[in-house]
Amino acid sequence: MPSTKHPQPGTKIDAVLDPVIPELNELVAKTPGTLSLAQGMVNWAPPVAVKLAMNNALVNQESSLNRYGPVRGDPALLELINQKLMIQNGLDLAESMVMVTAGSNMAFHAIAQVLCDPGDEVILPLPYYFNHFMAIQLAGGVPVPVDAGLIPNPELIEAAITKCTRAIVTISPNNPSGIVFPQTLLAAINGICAQHGLLHISDEAYEDFVFGDVPHWSPGSIPGAGNHTVSLYSFSKAYGMAGWRLGYMSAPIGWSKALAKVQDTVLICPPRFCQQAAIAALADGSDWMRQNVSQFMSRYQYLLNRFAASNDRPWRFLHQPNGAFYCLLEVDCGCNGDTLMRQLVRDYRVATIGGCSFGFKNESCVLRISVGMLEGAELIEAFDRLEAGLLNAVQKGVRNT
Amino acid sequence: MPSTKHPQPGTKIDAVLDPVIPELNELVAKTPGTLSLAQGMVNWAPPVAVKLAMNNALVNQESSLNRYGPVRGDPALLELINQKLMIQNGLDLAESMVMVTAGSNMAFHAIAQVLCDPGDEVILPLPYYFNHFMAIQLAGGVPVPVDAGLIPNPELIEAAITKCTRAIVTISPNNPSGIVFPQTLLAAINGICAQHGLLHISDEAYEDFVFGDVPHWSPGSIPGAGNHTVSLYSFSKAYGMAGWRLGYMSAPIGWSKALAKVQDTVLICPPRFCQQAAIAALADGSDWMRQNVSQFMSRYQYLLNRFAASNDRPWRFLHQPNGAFYCLLEVDCGCNGDTLMRQLVRDYRVATIGGCSFGFKNESCVLRISVGMLEGAELIEAFDRLEAGLLNAVQKGVRNT
Repeated sequence: MPSTKHPQPGTKIDAVLDPVIPELNELVAKTPGTLSLAQGMVNWAPPVAVKLAMNNALVNQESSLNRYGPVRGDPALLELINQKLMIQNGLDLAESMVMVTAGSNMAFHAIAQVLCDPGDEVILPLPYYFNHFMAIQLAGGVPVPVDAGLIPNPELIEAAITKCTRAIVTISPNNPSGIVFPQTLLAAINGICAQHGLLHISDEAYEDFVFGDVPHWSPGSIPGAGNHTVSLYSFSKAYGMAGWRLGYMSAPIGWSKALAKVQDTVLICPPRFCQQAAIAALADGSDWMRQNVSQFMSRYQYLLNRFAASNDRPWRFLHQPNGAFYCLLEVDCGCNGDTLMRQLVRDYRVATIGGCSFGFKNESCVLRISVGMLEGAELIEAFDRLEAGLLNAVQKGVRNT
Repeated sequence: MPSTKHPQPGTKIDAVLDPVIPELNELVAKTPGTLSLAQGMVNWAPPVAVKLAMNNALVNQESSLNRYGPVRGDPALLELINQKLMIQNGLDLAESMVMVTAGSNMAFHAIAQVLCDPGDEVILPLPYYFNHFMAIQLAGGVPVPVDAGLIPNPELIEAAITKCTRAIVTISPNNPSGIVFPQTLLAAINGICAQHGLLHISDEAYEDFVFGDVPHWSPGSIPGAGNHTVSLYSFSKAYGMAGWRLGYMSAPIGWSKALAKVQDTVLICPPRFCQQAAIAALADGSDWMRQNVSQFMSRYQYLLNRFAASNDRPWRFLHQPNGAFYCLLEVDCGCNGDTLMRQLVRDYRVATIGGCSFGFKNESCVLRISVGMLEGAELIEAFDRLEAGLLNAVQKGVRNT
């Protein structure tokens, strides 16, 4: 007679952070007409070169693309990425390998799986990107959030190092704060990693979105940094290819074999038609991409103006953003960011992401605002709804749910 | 002054099995003109419907496909998969959820990540599929190979259950043996799982490749089995879409939230243009696919004839295959299968996969042979090379390298 005890998920997965995006998407689906200041992507389509390359691949029956490919990615794409990393990012690849993944989340996941033995600690400056936190947990590691300021103080980061620490993660331009970290800061953290034998994981998915005076800079460009630096990049953001799922990383060359184990087990090889699209994007789409990003400037400016005018209001930037397409808004409100996020969708049909998922404590009410998906009248309307919703929340007082 | 201790991969990843495919691919790349009896895929391209659907998606600028999609997959594809699973596989989905992944390896990986706490055991009847073994190791679990016969004896499987056992894996049609497991066997193992509160993970990637009297049967079709059964499927094999990286699974509905955590962290969502291709394959390509598979019969027959004629030779089937496109060959040879595999590529330009990766011990010399990629004169030539290489190995005696 069959038992009634059905197999259940393990306790490890139970402890992993709940992902906010699927929850938010469900909420938005139930609330037609919601405008999104939440999604971490842009509203343009990939360069026309991508479409042409795909057509070409399909018409010319590139039958080899239907087959499994090399585990690290197709040589033609790897070659273009190598060039881009050396010329554009200035990376010192002498001691590095490059691998293409189905999105840069997967690259971080692979690094975490290779890096972490049970109990190994990875330092995440606050606020962190939730999928980093989750990937470390999945790998059996311990994410260690460190409050070192929005532009993190390297001394405070270094003070958090224990004998279990294995890596320090930075994200610049930052998700969720929209801050571009200065070179001195990133170089200091990279130096700390070199000194302590730690891995510096530098997430640069938003490298093309820089709107202020601080340029993007890759810590992997320090001569010799290749053997202790992982640099992560994405086609999802600037190239408008989120749905194509392609990203890549450079990592210490000594990690090649271990990373191939993970890739072979998880993905076998990156999707090959998507790799053709990426080749076209890199080879022929970068000018186009830069033009799109520069037109983004007006949206960014609108964001600044909108909230600069609200100095007397019960909300404010946690820090003025100068990159990515995000900012963090602190609201003088009795509830946490996630509660406010839910209420704003339900009652004001505007989506943001609550700060809890980025590590902001229950006592503070922080929202991440994205200007990636909206422009013109829709952007204005979304901000009108947001401000009306914030005002209502502050005046009525909202309790955590 | 920087230390010289560079960060290294962890000990967990070090213990994970070395993947054989990347090693073999490198060897083949160094040996031009090698014919492949190794690769686990077919030599046909996807149905023409796939190409039309992709063109349509590109021409009509389906801009939404450039964006992130639902974590479990696009609703239109999920709907088609649901229908296919109910009608074709007869699955009882009342207590199940369905999720699309970038290949069915990724589905297994997600299940392993959700299932395993450190030390949890997963029973793999011998021979096993190496990526299953690796995924369990990555998840911190312990793969437990059980020698219960090529058509496994359920009593021997049950005898291997300990208090740490969490799941039993079956693969039918089997990779690497090419054996279709009879319904009684699969039902018995599913019943054992129900009784002991274990998960039955049923890998059915080769469901369409059945050449003998034993039909393919899905244990998830047992009424009520949904709450303790995971069924895995692939677009890589019968549809010729290995390079597209798409697979799917049904899993207990109570696992939805946990599986979404893994998918969100690893992939965010399945590649969306590839999902359009899969929709076309399922909606309009299944007749086409079945016709291709039926033409496969002659290759399968050739395989049988070729080795039936070799009764007096120092190699033989471990068991006559009746499905997938594989067989296992046992060779009376002093070395193990991996050593022989390397020699056959180097000296006879024919690729197979050595049995060590499937769990055959060093004392036995076993090769997995695939007839998926070759036909006609090339297939004959490959077998000629293989037999010449085997004869040489047996006569000269080869030592393990």
